[in-house]
Amino acid sequence: MTQVDHTRMANAIRGLAMDAVEKAKSGHPGLPMGAADVATVLFTQFLKFDAAEPNWPDRDRFVLSAGHGSMLLYALLYLTGNKDMTLDQIKHFRQLGSLTPGHPENFHTKGIETTTGPLGQGIATAVGMALAEKMLAAEFGKKVVGHHTYVLVSDGDLMEGVSQEAIAMAGHWKLNKMIVLYDDNGISIDGPTSIADSVDQVKRFKSAGWAAELIDGHDQKAIAAAITRAQKSSKPSLIACKTTIGFGAPTRAGTAKAHGEALGAEELKGAKENLGISLEPFSVPEDVLKAWREAGSRGVAERKAWEGRFAELGNRKRAEFERRLRHERPASLAKALKAHKKGLLEKPENIATRKSSESAIEAIAAAMPMEFLAGSADLTGSNNNKAKSATAFSAKTPKGRFIHYGIREHGMCAAMNGIFLHGGFAPNGATFLVFTDYARPAMRLAALMGTGVVYVMTHDSIGLGEDGPTHQPVEHLSALRAIPNMRVFRPCDAVEVTECWELALNRTDGPTVLALTRQNLPQLRTSAPADNPCSHGAYELVAAQGEAKVSLFASGSEVEIAVAAQKQLAERGIASRVVSVPALELLLAQPADRQKAIIGNAPVKIAIEAAIRWGWDAVIGKDGEFIGMHGFGASAPAKDLYKHFGITAEAAVNAALKRLG
Amino acid sequence: MTQVDHTRMANAIRGLAMDAVEKAKSGHPGLPMGAADVATVLFTQFLKFDAAEPNWPDRDRFVLSAGHGSMLLYALLYLTGNKDMTLDQIKHFRQLGSLTPGHPENFHTKGIETTTGPLGQGIATAVGMALAEKMLAAEFGKKVVGHHTYVLVSDGDLMEGVSQEAIAMAGHWKLNKMIVLYDDNGISIDGPTSIADSVDQVKRFKSAGWAAELIDGHDQKAIAAAITRAQKSSKPSLIACKTTIGFGAPTRAGTAKAHGEALGAEELKGAKENLGISLEPFSVPEDVLKAWREAGSRGVAERKAWEGRFAELGNRKRAEFERRLRHERPASLAKALKAHKKGLLEKPENIATRKSSESAIEAIAAAMPMEFLAGSADLTGSNNNKAKSATAFSAKTPKGRFIHYGIREHGMCAAMNGIFLHGGFAPNGATFLVFTDYARPAMRLAALMGTGVVYVMTHDSIGLGEDGPTHQPVEHLSALRAIPNMRVFRPCDAVEVTECWELALNRTDGPTVLALTRQNLPQLRTSAPADNPCSHGAYELVAAQGEAKVSLFASGSEVEIAVAAQKQLAERGIASRVVSVPALELLLAQPADRQKAIIGNAPVKIAIEAAIRWGWDAVIGKDGEFIGMHGFGASAPAKDLYKHFGITAEAAVNAALKRLG
Repeated sequence: MTQVDHTRMANAIRGLAMDAVEKAKSGHPGLPMGAADVATVLFTQFLKFDAAEPNWPDRDRFVLSAGHGSMLLYALLYLTGNKDMTLDQIKHFRQLGSLTPGHPENFHTKGIETTTGPLGQGIATAVGMALAEKMLAAEFGKKVVGHHTYVLVSDGDLMEGVSQEAIAMAGHWKLNKMIVLYDDNGISIDGPTSIADSVDQVKRFKSAGWAAELIDGHDQKAIAAAITRAQKSSKPSLIACKTTIGFGAPTRAGTAKAHGEALGAEELKGAKENLGISLEPFSVPEDVLKAWREAGSRGVAERKAWEGRFAELGNRKRAEFERRLRHERPASLAKALKAHKKGLLEKPENIATRKSSESAIEAIAAAMPMEFLAGSADLTGSNNNKAKSATAFSAKTPKGRFIHYGIREHGMCAAMNGIFLHGGFAPNGATFLVFTDYARPAMRLAALMGTGVVYVMTHDSIGLGEDGPTHQPVEHLSALRAIPNMRVFRPCDAVEVTECWELALNRTDGPTVLALTRQNLPQLRTSAPADNPCSHGAYELVAAQGEAKVSLFASGSEVEIAVAAQKQLAERGIASRVVSVPALELLLAQPADRQKAIIGNAPVKIAIEAAIRWGWDAVIGKDGEFIGMHGFGASAPAKDLYKHFGITAEAAVNAALKRLG
Repeated sequence: MTQVDHTRMANAIRGLAMDAVEKAKSGHPGLPMGAADVATVLFTQFLKFDAAEPNWPDRDRFVLSAGHGSMLLYALLYLTGNKDMTLDQIKHFRQLGSLTPGHPENFHTKGIETTTGPLGQGIATAVGMALAEKMLAAEFGKKVVGHHTYVLVSDGDLMEGVSQEAIAMAGHWKLNKMIVLYDDNGISIDGPTSIADSVDQVKRFKSAGWAAELIDGHDQKAIAAAITRAQKSSKPSLIACKTTIGFGAPTRAGTAKAHGEALGAEELKGAKENLGISLEPFSVPEDVLKAWREAGSRGVAERKAWEGRFAELGNRKRAEFERRLRHERPASLAKALKAHKKGLLEKPENIATRKSSESAIEAIAAAMPMEFLAGSADLTGSNNNKAKSATAFSAKTPKGRFIHYGIREHGMCAAMNGIFLHGGFAPNGATFLVFTDYARPAMRLAALMGTGVVYVMTHDSIGLGEDGPTHQPVEHLSALRAIPNMRVFRPCDAVEVTECWELALNRTDGPTVLALTRQNLPQLRTSAPADNPCSHGAYELVAAQGEAKVSLFASGSEVEIAVAAQKQLAERGIASRVVSVPALELLLAQPADRQKAIIGNAPVKIAIEAAIRWGWDAVIGKDGEFIGMHGFGASAPAKDLYKHFGITAEAAVNAALKRLG
């Protein structure tokens, strides 16, 4: 191996980061400069990876939770020899179309494990990766699955509440292969962290079941020793590394000015002189680059050895492993769902959709017992997403396939991103629909990254009754539909539930919300066509007898009301049709002709949904009638509430009569 | 004072809670039964209150963070003699229109300090109350302001991430008058908390600068001794009280079955027999009720003494104190804003709206320097909501009126609710618009409770540029507009900024988001009518020359684009009008005739907003043209992004031409 001084290698990161930010006139030089020593030790001595094969399944994961320090990651990718990350990309840092956006985007740049930037997400996502590793290792053996998950966090990551949820889960699950390196530079944007924080992070992590220690983050030996200790620990480890933000910068080092802006020509020159590196922008000495490239191929032998062990696994196991990492569903799933639908048509289920979801889950879990990975934020009995066969996951029972996430909706959803990104599982997590508010940052990242996770969100309207307005979602369907690439299904009965589960599980490029009722619903569907009518977001559930004067659109629990209204209208000689709309935003994404066909030409359009109108105008028009909520709910039995808020067949009928004159 | 055994008093709470839940066939008996001893000690020996005067400004605040245990609170209100809380209300627990909804609602029931239920909110809101107390005490003197803030939390509250943000803030600010009683019953909905949690809460709180200890929560002497110690501490205090959930229930005590459902006749009977209380539903022995009522009037003398001290404050100070507690703005505010607008018309500001907001804030803070309470989640220099005159609040500088909340958007927004509910301040807090996702549960509670807080949300679109899609809101305007009672303003220039600030500060029955740009904008407005055109959500900014063929609707930074499009259309002989829409949802809440007048009859309707279309169909119709975002943003300079995503005057003109044929 080329003998190059650690400091010169670290300084290569610093130089590239300074130059890239300077050229972009935008970005964050402070973290890469401060954390360069920590990263250099990790990447040259510990991280198991092969830069040429960034998708090697058993690579160590490295998550830059402090995503604003993206140049640290880009510099490392370039230096270690990632094929796509050329110097030209670095020179186009933060420019349109480059592989070097402001914050790391895994869906955009190979070699990046997850998208970070919104603080706290990286560490919480990494918990999911470490969890997936533990579970897969228990299933496929430690010879095939045995890697670490490293995370670099900033003070901002640790101030965000989701970090507490993350570390509590990791500590409880004893995810000892998770090692968090805390870039403890004592500086945040507003100034010294001491103006806003006095938490003792070492003590805090210890209280959550972690090993934790404080070291000098510029002392390469101390860093190496701490990582070695962490690797041996039976607990997850925090290594708080005292660093100087903007290390080397003559006037800005150790100050907030180093954090988030270009240094400027003079400060940059001074920094380079201090560090003893070339003033030539983007230059890396040949021997330093060579040493880095050697570090980037350190893992080749290890990877090849792994391939040998993987080959020994046997064809069937190997195919299973590879299929699951590709997020491909087993053939048995389609069969199971088909059979389940057939059963429903033969013997209808007039139960809450959360319960029909449970019944679908039994079929699904039987078809893919080891990859269907459900969990709940402490509402298991209410969310009904635990298959009878599933046992609880714990540190001692890593083959358990139901996760008690605790009352941590945000941590749950972030961990699910990590589980999906790691590969091997189809994760779904559950809570009440109203509490998607708690998890929204992680759910947005799921949509942005395109992780195929499923959110089982029960108690989806005022229909939950007595818990009252704090627990009754009214704006959540709309607010979730608004997230690009988020699929929101609100099925109306057991058949639709099964169809929506089918679509959700086969969606591997984005997340799906299943909004399910607490209250019982009749099974309305009498057929289950192979083309899955829910796949277009909406379809005509009951045609009009004669030319329709009225179109009744509804989702979920209100489809029953639409059907009742249709009957009442028919009794008055008025023909109407019922359109079930399990996914409003999916309907609006259909080609214009299909949308038109589904929406139809009836002169009166009425939408019924026990939620706010926001978004529905795209279907019923501004002059359409909306039967739903106009504000927050109230605490009372569900039936009283539907009556109180006027979400009834009678109200729909009256609206139709008024409009028809 | 009537001598009644502590246990009999505590059992009165237990009996009422069991009976109310039993009658409602819904609710949570476990917490009131388990925490009855803690609550009894607090309310009979420590809590400074006068049940007859629940709004006495210097009362101790008691927040039931574990809102599902609402019957504890209702029982206490009834027992201590709150006028509205009759036994009949208790008998109508969780029924439509009763004062006893499933979770406590402060806007609905007098004597309740804040709305709880979504876990973690209560403790974080209480931080704001304790903070407001400390600030007001420093300003008006400890003789007038000197109360404690007590919080009862459950394990769920402490698992939620926002609790970490809350305790970190309270510890840092040394809010020593905040005392948290943790109902440490070791049980959550899914079973023993040990299935999902192993955090040592005492150690965790200590790591955040709290005093913390563990006691027996059924030992009245231990409880009293711990509260006494906490009152003397120089730090905020956690008292972890080991309790038995469903205390007294023969088979369910200490189990998850006691948490969230009626006990059932047999278990209820057994519990009452165990506790030695009457089987007669809702009965409280006369001597016990008398003792409770005496506890409820314990504070009368203290309140009267306070009134005496308050009188000594002098007329002017007293009037100021009362005005501020009423959330009434000083007359100087209207004057200052009027003068500021006049100045803008004389000397236009062509700057980012975050900067024109800063300039408005200078005027506002000068008019109400001690009540305008700004803060930022570590983005002070970017959010521009710190007046030059404002100094930083800290434990040592309690008269500071700018709060460095740290990177804790959720904690900030929850604390602002508490600050508002306490009274005395007009709180506003700032971060990037995209991070409203982190704060949404607290923002929703603000809308539900009607707290008049202001969110200064800068970097409101792809216009923020290089930070990329993780930082660029596209769905957030829509998702916020969807929350009932949330006002979302996106002003287009310095004059609108001032008008929106005026509306926001004068709104004391609900929260307001101000969405502001990072990038510079021209001042478009040339007049500032007294009736504040923003108050209707939208208005015609530039009329058409001749009959309008096109209406151009836009908000914020895109109004400039609409104006440019108008000019280009005019050059082609096409008359169009520009409607500025600072608050889309407010426009849609206007009476139909006003809406029609604003929206107009032009055959082509075009909306321009650098965000998704969701919601806009209500203005432009399904066949309207929308120039905006159709998915997530990208990392690049703002100008490149506007061009890349086609949000340009040319795109609007082309859309118009296409439609006009």
